[in-house]
Amino acid sequence: MIEYRPLRIALLGAGSVGGQVARLLLENKNELAARVGAELELIGIAVRDLNGKRDSAIPRELLTTDAEALIMTADIVIEVMGGIEPARTLIRQALLAGADVITANKALLANHSTELFDVAEQVGAQLYYEAAVAAAIPIIRPLRESLAGDKVIRIMGIVNGSTNYILDRMDSEGLSLEAAMVEATDLGYLEADPKLDVEGYDAAQKIAILASLAFHTEVDLNSVHREGITSITPAQIASARENGYVIKLLAVCEKIEADEDGEAGVSARVYPALIPREHPLASVRKAFNAVFVEAEAAGELMFYGAGAGGSQTASAVLGDLVSAAKRHVIGGPGLADSAHADLPTLPISRITTSYQIALEVKDQPGVLAEVANIFATHNVSVETVEQSIANKRQNPTAQLLIGTHDAKDSALTAVVQALSSSKVVDSITSVIRVEGN
Amino acid sequence: MIEYRPLRIALLGAGSVGGQVARLLLENKNELAARVGAELELIGIAVRDLNGKRDSAIPRELLTTDAEALIMTADIVIEVMGGIEPARTLIRQALLAGADVITANKALLANHSTELFDVAEQVGAQLYYEAAVAAAIPIIRPLRESLAGDKVIRIMGIVNGSTNYILDRMDSEGLSLEAAMVEATDLGYLEADPKLDVEGYDAAQKIAILASLAFHTEVDLNSVHREGITSITPAQIASARENGYVIKLLAVCEKIEADEDGEAGVSARVYPALIPREHPLASVRKAFNAVFVEAEAAGELMFYGAGAGGSQTASAVLGDLVSAAKRHVIGGPGLADSAHADLPTLPISRITTSYQIALEVKDQPGVLAEVANIFATHNVSVETVEQSIANKRQNPTAQLLIGTHDAKDSALTAVVQALSSSKVVDSITSVIRVEGN
Repeated sequence: MIEYRPLRIALLGAGSVGGQVARLLLENKNELAARVGAELELIGIAVRDLNGKRDSAIPRELLTTDAEALIMTADIVIEVMGGIEPARTLIRQALLAGADVITANKALLANHSTELFDVAEQVGAQLYYEAAVAAAIPIIRPLRESLAGDKVIRIMGIVNGSTNYILDRMDSEGLSLEAAMVEATDLGYLEADPKLDVEGYDAAQKIAILASLAFHTEVDLNSVHREGITSITPAQIASARENGYVIKLLAVCEKIEADEDGEAGVSARVYPALIPREHPLASVRKAFNAVFVEAEAAGELMFYGAGAGGSQTASAVLGDLVSAAKRHVIGGPGLADSAHADLPTLPISRITTSYQIALEVKDQPGVLAEVANIFATHNVSVETVEQSIANKRQNPTAQLLIGTHDAKDSALTAVVQALSSSKVVDSITSVIRVEGN
Repeated sequence: MIEYRPLRIALLGAGSVGGQVARLLLENKNELAARVGAELELIGIAVRDLNGKRDSAIPRELLTTDAEALIMTADIVIEVMGGIEPARTLIRQALLAGADVITANKALLANHSTELFDVAEQVGAQLYYEAAVAAAIPIIRPLRESLAGDKVIRIMGIVNGSTNYILDRMDSEGLSLEAAMVEATDLGYLEADPKLDVEGYDAAQKIAILASLAFHTEVDLNSVHREGITSITPAQIASARENGYVIKLLAVCEKIEADEDGEAGVSARVYPALIPREHPLASVRKAFNAVFVEAEAAGELMFYGAGAGGSQTASAVLGDLVSAAKRHVIGGPGLADSAHADLPTLPISRITTSYQIALEVKDQPGVLAEVANIFATHNVSVETVEQSIANKRQNPTAQLLIGTHDAKDSALTAVVQALSSSKVVDSITSVIRVEGN
């Protein structure tokens, strides 16, 4: 029942994702044609160097270095080359030429999505990007379509596989950060520049994309608060475990209502946080990703899977390709994502969370009262205090592990500030946020 | 930017789901209109009895007992009345009148989906049913769209919340089945007829729907193998825990290739099974649901959330409503689900799995050899044997806990049969399948 002309598909990039996209397109040719109602014809694959090393799935006769010429005759352009340029210029050109575009490029979207969506809207073309966040885990489509009649309250994601692997190995095997990073490097989990992972840049890009979509508002990557995992110690991991928590690098976004500190807006942030072991995110092990969504009517949802990998990313690209191709054949609804809510992105000081703070204090009368007083002064309510005494001969000290109730992050920061300058506090060993309680 | 005429929405049913659908439709009127590009006008709510007790969100002036008249003037009909009739006849009439239909009715779909999809296809109308399986958890749309360019290998779901609650309480609190059932009843988790839950009928309906969708083939509800949880004992739960497993009621479907026992086909089944505690499904606690999908390119995915509840189901209905309404406004791809693969549904004997078998045997020389011989005769390979001796004075017996490697279910059944008639076996205390290893 193929009644429509073949659709012309151009592929930009022939790396690990491009190779898998080409393989799936060619291997599943007949099934895809049956699903779409038209043949999907791969008309060319743009690469920088015709003689580079390639996946054997890439038909060499389709390779070209002239990406601009290739996209001009395509119905649908798949961009899996990565990086900002020339991807950005090529996607603009493709959209302006009337092609629908599918991209797996999170860096590009996190930095230039408004520009690209504007171009797409002007010309009535579509830009699909399921593969740009968490690879094959369907998260863009559920946010955009399944929850279209609901309201997202908050998203908490484990969206960087390598840091989750590192933290998981520190937790399950007691490894040091350095040893876990060596393992992750050996397994090929870390980016060429590991800072992108361990300092939270990759997660920040992804949460900027998710926040924009969930709250119909433009979230600038530069306004995402970002803390990485480089200062996480085995002692913090062990303490978390003893107390029924696990440390995960969380990417969080949520709607914040207007209050005495300012207007309503969106918070987007990345930081390591304690989450209770019974929380569904705690069971996300190894390099897996998961996105936990709270919505008004739907309640709690979680989407779990491999957040990276050539074939996983290609699976998401192919899902978008089938949607785009069907729209060519039968016509279809525009994506109609818009920044209609137009909310500001708020600083971290506006969020409400709780802290767990580990202190080394002098073991002498009145210390606990003084510490408690610091919390009270800043209107931060203490939920738990655990004290353990290490009687060093010369200088007896006590360890305090203090868990707070929810409070404004600004108040918690002020507490930490005050503690650090208090005479009874020898040192602050750990400050970490708690989520998911 | 509302340019399209208002769309006329008819609601059939005003129970807990209907009340929430009405509430969301009315409360989010403006957001929905902005998203769709047309107003969604609730034109009437069909009920059996105008004077029944209602959610306060239901506007009484919209109530009518004349469902047939109501659907004749609707663009989109939402069926949340449940049950086979009159839902089936009304949905047929609505489709034939050209309306798109959204249903949350799993029993109807599990029994009559082919008929209803055929009617929809004939007239070019659409039938949406995200809410029919696992409420707000987006699983229909990901299977239909996100994985449209991939191939599903297998689905394992915890799709019945009440039985998951019961098994979770038995596991975490050591409750008996009866005590856990009382709790579940008190919490309103069990259906009016608890058999539908505890004997796996509800889960069987859901996996029939998922299997049909995942494998593009018609899966008859009667061909779903079904075992409930009524024979699960605290001893089995405790043994599972000791061995690093947890018992879950799993609904499984998978593609089975042709082999020496017959042609290729689909297996769909429901049974309690052991799964390793590290498996993502093991962390699904209380009355939550989750669907674990393995696909060729995407790898492992899991979708988690509340699988029931009025507002959760309504969230899924609204997601479908926005899709259906957008299609009215802008035109859109048909769902184009088809049973093109047309595979047979295979009997349980064709599946490959592993068993864990607990036996009470005579504690005398040669017994283990004889038991091992029974496994070998049927070509079932033993992976683990644990023996514990209970020296009853008169009649010394030993407990054997035997884990098998993967084998055909028919061979495993034959082993159990042979064990039960063996002279050295006093009794078979537990036979349970293992999944997710």
